[in-house]
Amino acid sequence: MTSTTDQLQTSAGEREQILSAAAEAAAPWGALDPTQRAAALTTVAEALEDHAGELLEVAQRETRLPPGRLRGELTRTTFQLGLFAELLRDGGYRGIQIDHADPDWPMGAPRPDLRRRLEPLGPVLVFAASNFPFAFSVAGGDTASALAAGCPVVLKAHPGHLELSARTGAVVSDALRAAGAPAGTFAVVFGDDSGRQVLLDPRIRAAAFTGSLRGGRALFDLATGRPDPIPFYGELSSINPVFVTRGAAQRRAAEIAAGFVASFTLGAGQFCTKPGLLVVPADSTLPQLLAKAELPEPGPLLNERIAYGHTEARQALLDHQDVRVLAGGGTDDPEHPSPTMLVTELGSVRGDLDGLFTECFGPTALVATYAEEAELVDFATVLDGQLTATIQGEESDAIVPELLPELARKAGRVLWNQWPTGVSVTYAQQHGGPYPATTAPTTTSVGTAAIERFLRPVAYQGFPAALLPTDLRDQ
Amino acid sequence: MTSTTDQLQTSAGEREQILSAAAEAAAPWGALDPTQRAAALTTVAEALEDHAGELLEVAQRETRLPPGRLRGELTRTTFQLGLFAELLRDGGYRGIQIDHADPDWPMGAPRPDLRRRLEPLGPVLVFAASNFPFAFSVAGGDTASALAAGCPVVLKAHPGHLELSARTGAVVSDALRAAGAPAGTFAVVFGDDSGRQVLLDPRIRAAAFTGSLRGGRALFDLATGRPDPIPFYGELSSINPVFVTRGAAQRRAAEIAAGFVASFTLGAGQFCTKPGLLVVPADSTLPQLLAKAELPEPGPLLNERIAYGHTEARQALLDHQDVRVLAGGGTDDPEHPSPTMLVTELGSVRGDLDGLFTECFGPTALVATYAEEAELVDFATVLDGQLTATIQGEESDAIVPELLPELARKAGRVLWNQWPTGVSVTYAQQHGGPYPATTAPTTTSVGTAAIERFLRPVAYQGFPAALLPTDLRDQ
Repeated sequence: MTSTTDQLQTSAGEREQILSAAAEAAAPWGALDPTQRAAALTTVAEALEDHAGELLEVAQRETRLPPGRLRGELTRTTFQLGLFAELLRDGGYRGIQIDHADPDWPMGAPRPDLRRRLEPLGPVLVFAASNFPFAFSVAGGDTASALAAGCPVVLKAHPGHLELSARTGAVVSDALRAAGAPAGTFAVVFGDDSGRQVLLDPRIRAAAFTGSLRGGRALFDLATGRPDPIPFYGELSSINPVFVTRGAAQRRAAEIAAGFVASFTLGAGQFCTKPGLLVVPADSTLPQLLAKAELPEPGPLLNERIAYGHTEARQALLDHQDVRVLAGGGTDDPEHPSPTMLVTELGSVRGDLDGLFTECFGPTALVATYAEEAELVDFATVLDGQLTATIQGEESDAIVPELLPELARKAGRVLWNQWPTGVSVTYAQQHGGPYPATTAPTTTSVGTAAIERFLRPVAYQGFPAALLPTDLRDQ
Repeated sequence: MTSTTDQLQTSAGEREQILSAAAEAAAPWGALDPTQRAAALTTVAEALEDHAGELLEVAQRETRLPPGRLRGELTRTTFQLGLFAELLRDGGYRGIQIDHADPDWPMGAPRPDLRRRLEPLGPVLVFAASNFPFAFSVAGGDTASALAAGCPVVLKAHPGHLELSARTGAVVSDALRAAGAPAGTFAVVFGDDSGRQVLLDPRIRAAAFTGSLRGGRALFDLATGRPDPIPFYGELSSINPVFVTRGAAQRRAAEIAAGFVASFTLGAGQFCTKPGLLVVPADSTLPQLLAKAELPEPGPLLNERIAYGHTEARQALLDHQDVRVLAGGGTDDPEHPSPTMLVTELGSVRGDLDGLFTECFGPTALVATYAEEAELVDFATVLDGQLTATIQGEESDAIVPELLPELARKAGRVLWNQWPTGVSVTYAQQHGGPYPATTAPTTTSVGTAAIERFLRPVAYQGFPAALLPTDLRDQ
């Protein structure tokens, strides 16, 4: 089994050094020309590739994820750094808005000269995720977007891959130093208590987290309970429901069954966007097809904590009187659980949703059958906030124009005839959603807009050109 | 004295009706074409003008603010509604981003078709402010921006102007109905307990507040402590420091003294952006000029609660051993306090800032003297978050390039040789800042960007054109 937090703890003295250096780095790192920060991010990406062999070997040993998956994730990580570098070179992320003075402004008083741009929030604490040892860990999306914004980063390592965190952290720190970044721009801290202490430190101006509902909510409460509350961008929990219309079930049942099994078992079900719920017509062939579906072999879960959580969550579902096993469920080894589908009837559980539609992180999914398509819309209205919601449908389905707006009110991303796993890093991507999907529904943690979480607007009023930041001057 | 909350309370039954109607209105109001919401906002603005005579009369009676000020504020209010209408007609507020599918996306996996736009959060609770009975009350900036975003609004009336709130609320509701808005798009609730109960209701998806640190923090704690925390946009407290360089003190002492007195006493000092602190060279003529400055006559404060708070805050400053009266302070009537300037030395209080640099809402300001200009930068680094920070300087002052970036790290708006009161409603305006200025440093409550607080991004993946929202289709 992987390491526990007891093995590696950042001391109070080390934390103080790290926080003090981060606070000192905030001004110079934030004031660098964005193209210089872009160059530093590119240097980090290159350094990660240079150390790929060593890092992948450690990652495989610590996380038990397969080599191909880890290699792909490292590519995603370096791509992500490069995409933020591109965003910085483009410069549009600054959101520059210039109002020239206007003596006739119709508000009733002259308008002063006002020029607004986004500036970095200050040092950011990032909690690494268990399930993406590269792409949402030390050099992952939160780190990349915070560094791009001009914020120093203190990274709380995930206990599931401590050695990888330490090694990746060294690669990142060395690369930043080589690129001329101030000394305190990046550091890694170890230990849950260190994470909490750093979160409470007044020098930390925002935090980002990807993980469990319980852990994330506890940290959110700490962040918002500070004497000076700070933004806490937590990505906590989502079941990512998939709604199959009658039309789709009639025309593409086999394809949908195969797609669902592939998506919910991908990476042993350890993705935030794993579809944990498939809602299908009771009178279609889908329940039977799914019952007979070939499920992948049991794969190892990332660590003991996740294995325990999965067993507990699966059991809670099974304890529900209207839930039974549809397929799988043949192993008792919590660390290598068999992919499993449970089944229930939407009609019979409508009055008792509590606990039934909560995330089960790992290779377990629930199939819910419906009698009438109208139940889909009803159910959508009582859903919790989600990262994603998917429709498997036909363009001619009358229910879709009704269902889609309801799902868009509940989820950050809605999909049509695709599967939610495999989140692309792009400009238009949205990885977020109402609570409990995230603690900050107006933001995203994937895609270029993730940078906005770490920026705040500042307006400059009445300044002569010579004193204005260069990008706020006319021309 | 004005009314108390005991006089008018929305009952639990009425609240339920209001919340249920707001929840029902969310989908149709949010789905309206933005140009239709623009037309509705314009109708509201016109209706307010149509009822100006009646509303101004009530406002003057309840708030004791002078007629000219109230007339100007109403103009600002209708202008603000019109500016959001213009923003909706322009359409850019949607933040549309389209990524076409790309099989060669260098992330390592093909990029799906992703289209992102901002959509309304759902019903919003707005707490009206005491000091802007029009512009930050029933039909004020928070209401205008939330309605523009497509969110129904439940408005918690401020106890300082209950009759005005009821009458303005009726004008707004009637105008919205006439413009074809759904029935639950807008409602007013009365009573502090009603405000808290509505804030805790799961149908409310965000809240906005302008008021005191104590009251705002209590509501922030309720909002973030909900089983499903929601964004709480609170504008709480700011001293809006003004830093006078040696050069400016030498060349423009009289002008600066007059400008400061005019700004801190404007509206009896009851503005969020009142400059509560002027930092001046000890060896300049400014301390003497200010000591001899002609101060306005005592004006009435808005209500008893504010009068009590002002007396308490002024006394707390006077209790500080290094603080004494510089000018004014000649009345004992808490509801009509004399404009007063206190004075201290920056050097002598550096070790005991606690309580000294906190907001004193009303016509009291502190003058702090410095010996060396370097103290300005030192002091800026220990300041709390601010709505504004101002430099009175000369372009050639060597201290300015050092001081300005420090102030930009602490304040949402920095000013040069102007005064912070009189906040213009524009595109580039920023009214916000790190805590305690606000609870949401990445946002603004004045200016067109205020709409962003009530919008969340939704990405549509893989949808055929016919199913996409119109503005996300190609072309």
